[in-house]
Amino acid sequence: MDYSKFFSDALNRLHDERRYRVFADLERIAGRFPHAVWHTPNGPRNVVIWCSNDYLGMGQHPKVVGAMVETATRVGTGAGGTRNIAGTHHPLVQLEEELADLHGKQAALLFTSGYVSNQTGISTLAKLMPNCLILSDALNHNSMIEGIRQAGCDRVVFRHNDVAHLEELLKATDPARPKLIACESLYSMDGDVAPLAAICDLAERYGAMTYVDEVHAVGMYGPRGGGIAERDGVMHRIDVLEGTLAKAYGCLGGYIAANKDIVDAVRSYAPGFIFTTALPPAICSAATAAIKHLKSSSWERERHQDRAARVKAILTAAGIPVMSTDTHIVPVFVGDAELCKKACDLLLEEHGIYIQPINYPTVAKGAERLRITPSPYHDDVLIDHLAESLLQVWDELGLPLRTKALAAE
Amino acid sequence: MDYSKFFSDALNRLHDERRYRVFADLERIAGRFPHAVWHTPNGPRNVVIWCSNDYLGMGQHPKVVGAMVETATRVGTGAGGTRNIAGTHHPLVQLEEELADLHGKQAALLFTSGYVSNQTGISTLAKLMPNCLILSDALNHNSMIEGIRQAGCDRVVFRHNDVAHLEELLKATDPARPKLIACESLYSMDGDVAPLAAICDLAERYGAMTYVDEVHAVGMYGPRGGGIAERDGVMHRIDVLEGTLAKAYGCLGGYIAANKDIVDAVRSYAPGFIFTTALPPAICSAATAAIKHLKSSSWERERHQDRAARVKAILTAAGIPVMSTDTHIVPVFVGDAELCKKACDLLLEEHGIYIQPINYPTVAKGAERLRITPSPYHDDVLIDHLAESLLQVWDELGLPLRTKALAAE
Repeated sequence: MDYSKFFSDALNRLHDERRYRVFADLERIAGRFPHAVWHTPNGPRNVVIWCSNDYLGMGQHPKVVGAMVETATRVGTGAGGTRNIAGTHHPLVQLEEELADLHGKQAALLFTSGYVSNQTGISTLAKLMPNCLILSDALNHNSMIEGIRQAGCDRVVFRHNDVAHLEELLKATDPARPKLIACESLYSMDGDVAPLAAICDLAERYGAMTYVDEVHAVGMYGPRGGGIAERDGVMHRIDVLEGTLAKAYGCLGGYIAANKDIVDAVRSYAPGFIFTTALPPAICSAATAAIKHLKSSSWERERHQDRAARVKAILTAAGIPVMSTDTHIVPVFVGDAELCKKACDLLLEEHGIYIQPINYPTVAKGAERLRITPSPYHDDVLIDHLAESLLQVWDELGLPLRTKALAAE
Repeated sequence: MDYSKFFSDALNRLHDERRYRVFADLERIAGRFPHAVWHTPNGPRNVVIWCSNDYLGMGQHPKVVGAMVETATRVGTGAGGTRNIAGTHHPLVQLEEELADLHGKQAALLFTSGYVSNQTGISTLAKLMPNCLILSDALNHNSMIEGIRQAGCDRVVFRHNDVAHLEELLKATDPARPKLIACESLYSMDGDVAPLAAICDLAERYGAMTYVDEVHAVGMYGPRGGGIAERDGVMHRIDVLEGTLAKAYGCLGGYIAANKDIVDAVRSYAPGFIFTTALPPAICSAATAAIKHLKSSSWERERHQDRAARVKAILTAAGIPVMSTDTHIVPVFVGDAELCKKACDLLLEEHGIYIQPINYPTVAKGAERLRITPSPYHDDVLIDHLAESLLQVWDELGLPLRTKALAAE
């Protein structure tokens, strides 16, 4: 049996489809974000990161770094066990209290990652409701889809952000059947926002539970960083809010926040929670510091929106095919996997700009793009340099400017 | 629809079965392991941890803590993205090289946790082999079982560590069918060891691939800490080795090590790897420091075995029903969920000894136990205190001493 053939064949398929991925080896510099060192085979080079999900640069914030250093020095590196067996530590307990407060819920529960919180959270919730039907947005993240699949229950998919379609599906369902509506608040690849109030209206009218993934919104929206649900005044109407500490809060980990019994049931039944080591104390302390800071400081949120608006304006004026969004995500349409990769290679090698190509399976084939994420620390000089570099690359590759690209969308 | 009832009912079931879990809120003290502070509702108390999976106390090692502090200060807290999108950083690349070297393999791949490495690693490997049959040890960890379930392929279970049964199953399988044998090297609840050489013999004879989980062995066995496979001289005969950084290495994260194509295929196809934020640089640097240290230092391994042997000898002499093991795990049989919890409560409250009760679903009902994990830092005084405390608790609860308990096993 030639097992090696299975794996080399699988890799060849990716090469053939031009979607074999090469990871850039980067080294950030605390205090100089978004500047970083790119480790190439020919030695290190300075680059500017334009695609980080450390959206607010909190990963380098002195309070956040300081909390990590202080806790690591005082209590050590790892948690030393699962939550049940020696792994529940004080910084973690404090972080869960901070998260419950952030979302105005009775309790919160921490997972290894946002991926795991969706995967084991959704599947556990659904399994606790006999004959549950999950109503899932068509563009939900892979982690939610995996959670829904593992739930093993029926699910129906509603068209992306289409409340009329969602209502049609709810109306067609037995009122006595448990129903869970699962969606995101902010979709990270298109940068669009869910109509959360309308979804809550439907959930209440048809007696459904709601589960909303806010990973691309927490820290960045709402007066205290509670996310889109806080901004829209519907946080209290959503049953389960899911978020991450790995993006705007600059750390690692995912969580759910909900009422006490829901959180306690997931805590008690979710295999992906029970059988895994707890997050390190230093990570939890750093995350708590970031959340606390962003509850009271609005500077990062305002500057973030200002920078995103400026990037959109400058690139649009230059004719670069920016896809329209209401948020901090700035997608630039390419529509071809190979050209997308080539554009990124040129940006990195010739202009010191690091933007990763977004290809299938992260987006659909034909929807390939650059995904630009300006942070509060991308200044006007960097934005101008980005626009000039994109124009040169667009020219070099013969990519269409504004009008033609829009038609291709 | 009363959704709250689903969750309160689920919790009531656990209370009724006496397996509702309460997590102890602990705070370790770097430099004083295994001493820690237990945060009770009535204030903090000093306790000694006897059930940590930070088996060698590396979570407080100055080199490990120092690496975490240095990297956090220099590059910040989080990775800022998925591996593909801005999240691959230099400390992570160096850690993967260190892990490949540890296991004598061409490559290694890091995951958020050992749980995730098994879950997404096994399912991805199996999906890449059409019509794969997985042969799984009966006592494999929940993360492996979830990985096998998600693979969606056929699987057969062989009796725990029973190579005759494994051979029977292999013999009955079409030689042309891809086969993956999945087992652990050291089973953490019973502390017994798999006959890896015999399993490799069978894999070679019947043309099967091998996947071995070494999470309770890496760092602790083998001259460089490569695990049971290194100790037994069979590391090169196993196709995929899986391990963790969260136990003997005192940090967080899981990994696989294998040949280049296998690792590259999992890297390219595993959803639980692709769609999740990379581990923080400071965690990776700390793990690398721990691995490097344990590649050359044998003091921790030797002292660890010495301490485990002493605990077994002292407890056995005292008549405490220690279950026999060849490893560093010291299980003490109780066989009843409520008594197991009561024994632990008494140890904690009256003796300042923290040992978590091990109940269903971590072990089968009727196999409830204390699971004691001595570290290099549990000295003779602590061991004597443990023995005396156990005897008092056994007496207080009317638990049987040596002879009767053995019969109950």
